Formats: sequence, structure tokens, C-alpha cells
Amino acid sequence: MTKGLVIVNTGNGKGKTTAAIGLLTRAWGRDMRLGGIQFLKHEKASYGELRAFERMGITLTPVGDGFTWMSRDMDETQAKALHGWELAKAQILSGAYDIFLLDEFTYVMHFGWLDAAEVVDWLRTNKPPMLHLIITGRDAPQALIDYADLVTEMREIKHPFREQGIKAQRGIEF
Amino acid sequence: MTKGLVIVNTGNGKGKTTAAIGLLTRAWGRDMRLGGIQFLKHEKASYGELRAFERMGITLTPVGDGFTWMSRDMDETQAKALHGWELAKAQILSGAYDIFLLDEFTYVMHFGWLDAAEVVDWLRTNKPPMLHLIITGRDAPQALIDYADLVTEMREIKHPFREQGIKAQRGIEF
Repeated sequence: MTKGLVIVNTGNGKGKTTAAIGLLTRAWGRDMRLGGIQFLKHEKASYGELRAFERMGITLTPVGDGFTWMSRDMDETQAKALHGWELAKAQILSGAYDIFLLDEFTYVMHFGWLDAAEVVDWLRTNKPPMLHLIITGRDAPQALIDYADLVTEMREIKHPFREQGIKAQRGIEF
Repeated sequence: MTKGLVIVNTGNGKGKTTAAIGLLTRAWGRDMRLGGIQFLKHEKASYGELRAFERMGITLTPVGDGFTWMSRDMDETQAKALHGWELAKAQILSGAYDIFLLDEFTYVMHFGWLDAAEVVDWLRTNKPPMLHLIITGRDAPQALIDYADLVTEMREIKHPFREQGIKAQRGIEF
């Protein structure tokens, strides 16, 4: 049996988005059609992965305005996240992708901006059967875990920034 | 403080190698110098990530002869893994890299082919201070965890192949 998988990377550790990027890179090596939405990141940000994907011809659309706990305007943050979900639905329905990433999408549900059960209902009804979907972020809601095929928890065992006062480093962290 | 990090991705879940590939891809977007050794994979294998990295101009050298539990000749498997470590040491010493991957290297120590304390001693003495090192694989030995700066455990929460009889899929799994 072959089907489009729903993959969730969650947990408090590193590597949730990074593993999604790795999966897209591997699939790019197989000439698959790749896309995604980055929730809750600044629209103007230029991260290492965005630079890489631009070179590779992969379009990830950042729709956030920075993480909410840095936001001065929660309503605008929420509005952008919900706009991101509308964009995502249109792209999921388009049939233009083999793999689609919803990066940091769990927060949108965890913060209560979208109801996880409604998101899952929409995906159950509308996701093309062969489309692989990757969803990342902490605190994946139970309804999403129940719906997903593959769920991995990234657990922090040891972290240099907290324990040793080492700065976040270009190319590694961002 | 800025320094070359020692990053370990371990655990029984998915995403250990995939997150390493993602990290290299992100760093490639920053024009960093990248290399690595893939232990315990077949020399002739052409995985999605190898195809991708070939396009990106990143050289990962596979030195294994397939996973040991599929090997008919344990001595040859061991010899190839040890040869991989010699190659790795030379490349780590070369100064030619900003980030170097030792993929599935934990097995070589877990199987007792190399002593983890000796590996760590060698790295403490010889690793260029600014070189970032990524080591992946299950059962990371405690000496390596103690030495590492950043350790993440990938924990399997839900897996489609065992639970639903879904086949491994091109571009996702390999």
C-alpha cells in the first residue's frame, strides 16, 4: 500500500523544521514537486533554508510576523496565521505538489486560532490522497496526532545555549 | 562565545539523518563548506539525499556495506566502518570544512568496533575549534553525549509502516 503520508515533527527539542527541510531536500533529489507555508516567521526574514530553497527552486511562503511572544499586535499575528492557512488550503487543493510543508503550524492550533478538529476534518476531506504533508511545531494537538501517519517527538537532551552560554550560530541555528 | 558545536541526533525515531541533511542544506544556503562520511550504508547506494547533494556540490562519502544485520561478512563490515573513521579523521584534520557529518557513526561505537572514550579523546584533541560536527545514529554512547554540545533524541510516537502496513516510500524514506 502506497499513500500520501501525514508526518508530524513535534516536541521541545531541535530538529523539527530541520528534519522537514532534510526531507524536502531528499525529495528534491528525486525531482518531486515541493512547496510549503512557514507560519509565524517574519515575512521579510532570509533564513539559511530560504536561501537554499531559493537556489533549489523550492518556494516556501513565510506568512507570519515573528513569533507571537515578540508581537505587539496579537490580532495582526493571528490574522496572518489564519491567512496562511487559507493560502495552504488553496495550495493543498491545487494538485501542484507531491510534498507540502506546514512549518510551525501546530502553534496556530495550540494558540486556539484554528480548531484542530476542524483542521483535521478539512484535511481528511480535501487532502489529495497521494500528497505527503509535513507539519512541524511544539505541542501538536491530539486530534492531529490521531490523524497523522508518522509522528516523531524531538526531545532536548542537551542544549548548548542554555547550558554553556553559547550564542546561536549562523548556518546551524538559522 | 562562538565555537564549533558537536551535535548528536540519536533515539529510535525518524529524522536523525534527515535533520542532519536539513542542517547541511541550511548551511549550504549560507555558502558554508560541507562534507561528511556515511557509515554503514552501501557504497553503491544512490539515496535521495546523495542525489540532492551531488547537485548541490556537497560530497558525502558512503563507506559501509549495508547495515550489519544484513551483512554476511561481519569482519568486512567492521573493516569498512573502521576505514570510514580513518577517512573521517583525515577530513576533520584537513581544515577544509565548516560542518562535517558522521552519519550513523554511533553504531560503530555501539557495536564496540571503536571505543567511544577513545573517539572522544581524539576529537577533543584534534577537532578544529570552529568546526561543527554532526553525529547521528541510535544508542549514542554516554561518553559522546557527555562530550557533545547539543543532543536531541528523536522519539517514535507513531510509525505508519509498523502500525498500518504502509510501504516505505521514495523521496520520503530514502
